[in-house]
Amino acid sequence: MEQILSAEAPIGVFDSGVGGLTVAREIMRQIPNEKIVYFGDTARVPYGSKSKETVTRFSRQIVRFLQTHHVKTIVVACNTASAYALEDLEKEIDVPIIGVVKPGAKAASAATRNGRIGVIATEATIGSRIYSQYIKKINPNVAIYGKACPLFVPLVEEGLWEDPVTDEIAKRYLNELIDINIDTLILGCTHYPLIRSTVARVMGEDVTLVNPAYETARELKEMLERKGLLKETPVALGENKYQFYVSDGAEKFKTFANSIIKYGILSAKTINIEEY
Amino acid sequence: MEQILSAEAPIGVFDSGVGGLTVAREIMRQIPNEKIVYFGDTARVPYGSKSKETVTRFSRQIVRFLQTHHVKTIVVACNTASAYALEDLEKEIDVPIIGVVKPGAKAASAATRNGRIGVIATEATIGSRIYSQYIKKINPNVAIYGKACPLFVPLVEEGLWEDPVTDEIAKRYLNELIDINIDTLILGCTHYPLIRSTVARVMGEDVTLVNPAYETARELKEMLERKGLLKETPVALGENKYQFYVSDGAEKFKTFANSIIKYGILSAKTINIEEY
Repeated sequence: MEQILSAEAPIGVFDSGVGGLTVAREIMRQIPNEKIVYFGDTARVPYGSKSKETVTRFSRQIVRFLQTHHVKTIVVACNTASAYALEDLEKEIDVPIIGVVKPGAKAASAATRNGRIGVIATEATIGSRIYSQYIKKINPNVAIYGKACPLFVPLVEEGLWEDPVTDEIAKRYLNELIDINIDTLILGCTHYPLIRSTVARVMGEDVTLVNPAYETARELKEMLERKGLLKETPVALGENKYQFYVSDGAEKFKTFANSIIKYGILSAKTINIEEY
Repeated sequence: MEQILSAEAPIGVFDSGVGGLTVAREIMRQIPNEKIVYFGDTARVPYGSKSKETVTRFSRQIVRFLQTHHVKTIVVACNTASAYALEDLEKEIDVPIIGVVKPGAKAASAATRNGRIGVIATEATIGSRIYSQYIKKINPNVAIYGKACPLFVPLVEEGLWEDPVTDEIAKRYLNELIDINIDTLILGCTHYPLIRSTVARVMGEDVTLVNPAYETARELKEMLERKGLLKETPVALGENKYQFYVSDGAEKFKTFANSIIKYGILSAKTINIEEY
C-alpha cells in the first residue's frame, strides 16, 4: 500500500546531531526548490559509539516525528543510522527512504582504479562493515579497508578544522591506509567533509576522496525525478522553506548550523523526541 | 515523610556513562562493606554539552530506575548532573542524595592558600557556575576561574591517557589558569582523574589538584554514619555486591570498567532507561 505523495511536500532529513547538515547543504545546492525538515538528535548525540538496537530505536522515533510533517521522502543523513537502521526502516514505512552509505559506496566503486578503497567512519559504521557489503555487491574484486576515527567528531565540534592536533591525529589514523596503498577514500561520517583538506593533505593528491553527502543529494534528485516528486516551483526563504528541529540546545545548534550552511538558518526548535 | 531506610540496602550511583566509575571506585575503597547499584547512561552520553532541561529529565528517569532497587542513598557521580539536576532531585525524592560538586568545592576551599581556585569541567558544568556558587558560600573572598575542556573526555575514552596529543591539548586549555596563578585546581569532570598526571605535569607541583570523587566518597561515608545507615557487615563479591546497569553497550562498558576498577566487574546489563 503506497501513500499518495505530493511533490510539494518537504524532504525529511535526519542525523544524530549537526553532522547531517553537510548532507542538507548538498541538497540545498543541488535541488534548491525543495523544502526541508531537518531533525538533529542533539540530546542523544553521538550515535557512532552506540549499539545497533539503540540506534535503530532512536531512528524509529525520528522517522515517526518526521512523518508528522508529511514528508515525501526521508534522507538518513547519518552514516551510523544508515548502517544500522536503514534496512529495518525501509520495511516499516511507506515513503521512500535513502541513506548515505549506498551512494557513497557506488561513487567509490566507480572511482577506484587499483581496486583498493579505504573507509573512515565511526566505530559503529566500521564495525557494521556496511560499506564493504555494498561495494562487494557492485564489484566483488575490490578490497575495502575500514578505519574508525573516533576523535574526528569531537575535534570538528571543538572547531579544530585546521590545526596541528587534527593533523597529528589524522596521520595516526590514516597511516595504515596509506601503507595499504588505497587510491580512494570514503569520508564515511557526515562530520568529515569539514576536515576534508586535512585528510586530503595527509593522504596525498593521488587519493580520491569520496563525499557521500554530495553523492546522496545526487541520488535523491534522481529518485525524486524518477518518481515524479521533484518540486518544480521555487519557494522563498522564510516561508518555512528550511525547518530545523533538535532534541536539545536549539540555540547552540543554530550557531553551529550557520557556520556550515550559508543560507541563513532562521530558527531551530527543540522537541522531546522520546515522545515519538 | 521520610522512608524507613535499611543499612543493608545498596547505594545507587549514576553517571552519564563510564566516568562515574572513578567515584564508584572511591566508594569501594573507602566503604568496602557497601553494596552498589551503578547506572551509566551510555545510550545518551555525554551530558556535558547538553542543556539543563535535558540533563534533568534524563536524571529523573535514572533516579526512578535506581529506586526500583530500593537504594538507601543516591550519589550523582556526574558533575554535569550534579550541577544541573541535583537541586530539583533533592526536593523530589525521599532518600538522601549527594552530588560530586559540593564535596569538591569544600575541599578546594580548604586547600587554597592564595584564594585563587581553578575549575576544569565540561561546558555545561562551567556554564552553570555551580562550583563558584558553592565556594563563594564557604568563602566569598575566593576567586574562581572556570575552563571548559571538551576534548578531555573523548581523549580519555580513546585511551590517550599518556600521550603527546593530550599534553598539547592540556597545555592549551590550562595555560590561562597558569597565567592567573591559581594554587588549587578542581578536576570537575569524573573522567579527569584518569589524566591526572598529565594535568599535574602541565600545572606544576605548586598547584593542588582536588579530586571530587575522593571527597564525595568521604562525605558519603560521613553522611551514612550520621544517619546510622553505614553497613557494618561485609558482603562477598559475587553476591550481587556490585551491580552495573547501562542504557547501551553492556559488553563495551564492562571492558572499560574493568580497566578502571580492579575489583572485577562480573556483569553489566542493558536496560531501556526511557521507560522509567
